[in-house]
Amino acid sequence: MLSLQNYPEILGQSLQQPMSETKAVTAAVLVIGDEILSGRTQDTNTNYIARFLAALGIDLKEARVVGDVEDEIVAALNALRSRYTYVFTTGGIGPTHDDITADAIAKAFGVGIDYHPEALAMLGARYKNPEDFNEMRKRMARVPLGGVLVKNSVSTAPGFRVGNVYTMAGVPMIMRAMLENIEPELERGAVVHSITISTRLGEGRIAAALARIQNDHPDLSIGSYPFYREDGFGVQLVARGRDLPGVEAAAEAIEAMIRAEGDKPERIGN
Amino acid sequence: MLSLQNYPEILGQSLQQPMSETKAVTAAVLVIGDEILSGRTQDTNTNYIARFLAALGIDLKEARVVGDVEDEIVAALNALRSRYTYVFTTGGIGPTHDDITADAIAKAFGVGIDYHPEALAMLGARYKNPEDFNEMRKRMARVPLGGVLVKNSVSTAPGFRVGNVYTMAGVPMIMRAMLENIEPELERGAVVHSITISTRLGEGRIAAALARIQNDHPDLSIGSYPFYREDGFGVQLVARGRDLPGVEAAAEAIEAMIRAEGDKPERIGN
Repeated sequence: MLSLQNYPEILGQSLQQPMSETKAVTAAVLVIGDEILSGRTQDTNTNYIARFLAALGIDLKEARVVGDVEDEIVAALNALRSRYTYVFTTGGIGPTHDDITADAIAKAFGVGIDYHPEALAMLGARYKNPEDFNEMRKRMARVPLGGVLVKNSVSTAPGFRVGNVYTMAGVPMIMRAMLENIEPELERGAVVHSITISTRLGEGRIAAALARIQNDHPDLSIGSYPFYREDGFGVQLVARGRDLPGVEAAAEAIEAMIRAEGDKPERIGN
Repeated sequence: MLSLQNYPEILGQSLQQPMSETKAVTAAVLVIGDEILSGRTQDTNTNYIARFLAALGIDLKEARVVGDVEDEIVAALNALRSRYTYVFTTGGIGPTHDDITADAIAKAFGVGIDYHPEALAMLGARYKNPEDFNEMRKRMARVPLGGVLVKNSVSTAPGFRVGNVYTMAGVPMIMRAMLENIEPELERGAVVHSITISTRLGEGRIAAALARIQNDHPDLSIGSYPFYREDGFGVQLVARGRDLPGVEAAAEAIEAMIRAEGDKPERIGN
């Protein structure tokens, strides 16, 4: 756990860095909320963040969902933030009693928590009648000490960054607006290119040839994703990697292999 | 890690047990697949499993997504299987080179892996021409030693259970059919009841009163979920718990609180 002493030093690091071709930039998502685990709500934030990060060349390595339980949030956060360049949390930063993310983040970093003056001013400006800015609404201005606000165009209530952890709202529209504000300060990696090829051949029929193509391109990831639709079944084959000529070469090898098996390969976008 | 010696003993335990009112039955989901982390595929299996388990009174406590990386699968699986009554994995049990879940499960349990005779017979029966049952297709019959098959009505390729871990397909249609076959052998808990009440009041306005209702019902979980729609914003308040009269009492307190604030509460199903 980070001690209070070295905490400001870490916060002082500029997270804005040039794109690195060699160093992998990695991330994890931590979804916080009983409503996801009860099945009440289908999480879509992880998928949105995954695509957002992919466009920046940042590898999403892991995602977790935990409930509104402080110890669980703290444990997951500490496991993830020590392993990956960034952690993005969603959920639990509203005004109600079940919104405990800010306290959990503070606890995970071993720092205190207090009202953030700018957040307090932003939120307070919403209310003509000062008594409408009640204690529970003020909860949304509580930020772990040293945290930097993440503003957004949709909601007055901000998220925040502490160290390498970005804490965002759970409401997708607000979460997406927060990501937009975070984007300029993220370190970028080389973007992963992918080409998807669809065939009606069975997965088992092409599996050996596909494994050979994977062996020929050890730096790429060749994935195989069967589909079952009303008009029949088939498989989508995906070549992914940072070397675009290599991805193209693998895609052509996949297409040649499909033709050799008697089907017509179909490229689907990228 | 489990040694080979005590492994058959654990497998020998009957998992079919009567419903327990006192002991919590818990679960975790482990989603395996690069396609989820790249954003290519929106995971819907976790939400389906969450609702499936809720109906049986089993508490889903945690979900994780990891890529097609053996060490990551092993580490996540060992962390989860020691903590929860059940672990349900999805993905990575097809015939292609990127399907490595069976090997990872075997490694996590510290057991070997081999062709399961019944799985081999089931799969082999699909092919008139024996040479069509190639080495890659036979991969789908590989099961960690001691594993019990999980058949399903959609696909000939089975999932399997090892200890308290159920390994299922990633394709939602097949995963759902596997869950159907698993259902009779799962230990059940007392079902969690929930009542959802919608209001157009702002979350911050009712937060203090809602916290008091939570305090009055410490055995329940009172959640607050704001929504933003074209026709305006509001919040859904959810009372959840195993004591139905308690849930009803909390719901009525929430409704009275909304009326006292000048809005008309609306119950939305359960």
